[in-house]
Amino acid sequence: MTSQYVKVEKEAFLIDCGEATQFQLLRNNISLHKISRIFISHLHGDHFYGLPGLLSTMQMNKRTDDLHIHAPRGLDEVLLANFKNSQTVLNYRVFIYETSPNFPEIIYENDTLYVETIPLKHRVPCTGFLIKEKPKMRRIEPDKLPAGIPFEMFKQLKAGEDIVFEGELLKNEEVTLPPKHSRSYAFCSDTAYFEDIIPQIEGCDLLYHESTFTEAHKERAKETYHSTAKQAATIAQKAAVDRLLIGHFSARYKSLDPVLEEAKEVFPNTYLATENVKFCIDC
Amino acid sequence: MTSQYVKVEKEAFLIDCGEATQFQLLRNNISLHKISRIFISHLHGDHFYGLPGLLSTMQMNKRTDDLHIHAPRGLDEVLLANFKNSQTVLNYRVFIYETSPNFPEIIYENDTLYVETIPLKHRVPCTGFLIKEKPKMRRIEPDKLPAGIPFEMFKQLKAGEDIVFEGELLKNEEVTLPPKHSRSYAFCSDTAYFEDIIPQIEGCDLLYHESTFTEAHKERAKETYHSTAKQAATIAQKAAVDRLLIGHFSARYKSLDPVLEEAKEVFPNTYLATENVKFCIDC
Repeated sequence: MTSQYVKVEKEAFLIDCGEATQFQLLRNNISLHKISRIFISHLHGDHFYGLPGLLSTMQMNKRTDDLHIHAPRGLDEVLLANFKNSQTVLNYRVFIYETSPNFPEIIYENDTLYVETIPLKHRVPCTGFLIKEKPKMRRIEPDKLPAGIPFEMFKQLKAGEDIVFEGELLKNEEVTLPPKHSRSYAFCSDTAYFEDIIPQIEGCDLLYHESTFTEAHKERAKETYHSTAKQAATIAQKAAVDRLLIGHFSARYKSLDPVLEEAKEVFPNTYLATENVKFCIDC
Repeated sequence: MTSQYVKVEKEAFLIDCGEATQFQLLRNNISLHKISRIFISHLHGDHFYGLPGLLSTMQMNKRTDDLHIHAPRGLDEVLLANFKNSQTVLNYRVFIYETSPNFPEIIYENDTLYVETIPLKHRVPCTGFLIKEKPKMRRIEPDKLPAGIPFEMFKQLKAGEDIVFEGELLKNEEVTLPPKHSRSYAFCSDTAYFEDIIPQIEGCDLLYHESTFTEAHKERAKETYHSTAKQAATIAQKAAVDRLLIGHFSARYKSLDPVLEEAKEVFPNTYLATENVKFCIDC
């Protein structure tokens, strides 16, 4: 089952919500209240069957904050059928936004980041999600500034402009440091090998790419619109990402060592996204 | 979450199917193939949100046997909404039978047992289930029989009849033992305190009765149509059952000791139905 909890600054997202996600969140001491937004890649059960239960538990926990859910068409019908028949009336508002599997689209942004869909190639409409911090401001080095600079000029400096203060030119690069790195995370699941995604995820810090099979079951991967470990690693390599996480392994692999090894042969900086593991970017 | 796996002779039933039931079955090494029939008490999420996932996994496991599900009206709508939107086409047949919350009804029987609904008192249509073995045959004591008795007469003896063999009267009770005990299990969840169920569950070997609260939260139990431990025990005592299992505890009780103690004061032969425990009748 797939589900990932993504914490970035003050925001907490959930990507996919397979059955029993609420229990895994509980096990990891993650408060359901903190989740403001849920992104569902596609409507196969292992990616969203935990949603009705999660929403019901949020209700039991007396949630009042709005909840925003992005998903392919049809999720509303499933949730309504569930809640109608269980006579559940939520005491918080749920907004459901339909994602398109056909083109990338910024589906959410705030002051510091945006979330963009990544159209994938699967048996049903399916998108990944790129979470990317916006370019950050340059960082002022206070020691290098003359005293008395007015507040407005700080904004100009942070934006990269040179300023003139008391008749003197202050060159931006002499009093500021470059911006901190804008972090990016790309979630790509479920998908066949699909090079179209490469330009969009190019250079990202962390790529999660499904890796249901190994090359030994390459034909099966093709039939079912899934990827092999080698294919996932090839995408990572071609997109020149920093790190690769692989997951969504077929139950046939009792040991995941061969899966990981296969990926590492192509892209050494690969890790297994197994249950309850945590990955950080710049922390 | 509620779910119980009931094994009786060659039959395997599931009663209720809360979220993550499939994982608990897996943990207990129970083959999903063996489950022929599922009984859903009511359509609150904690009793059936595991069903779409279970059915999908049965599909993944290449089930071909028919599956029979008994549930209140509306389950078909929920399952269809799920499967339509996940584009799941099951390769086995699912028969859904609607239970009535208004009167007891035999909803299944085979040669050796029957299953009867137990109308309960809850916020939504809800029934318990009584699983009861039919009266068994008397047991012949071969040592006490003369040689050469024809096969047909065995049947008469098992049915309790006296026979005449070679001019001699064989009194049934001299050559047979009484039938083995016909076992019975009553599942009653979710329900407010409801004495109407007593005649139906009277004398059963094992009663599962919900016990969401203790008497300290009696008012809350009343409002939500749930029972206290004392109420569950009172039903057990009035119905003169052999053993009582209590379950469906509110998450507010960090320790279940007070819940169990409260029940035992009224009905000493009470046990906690916690995760992964197993109870046997006559074994």
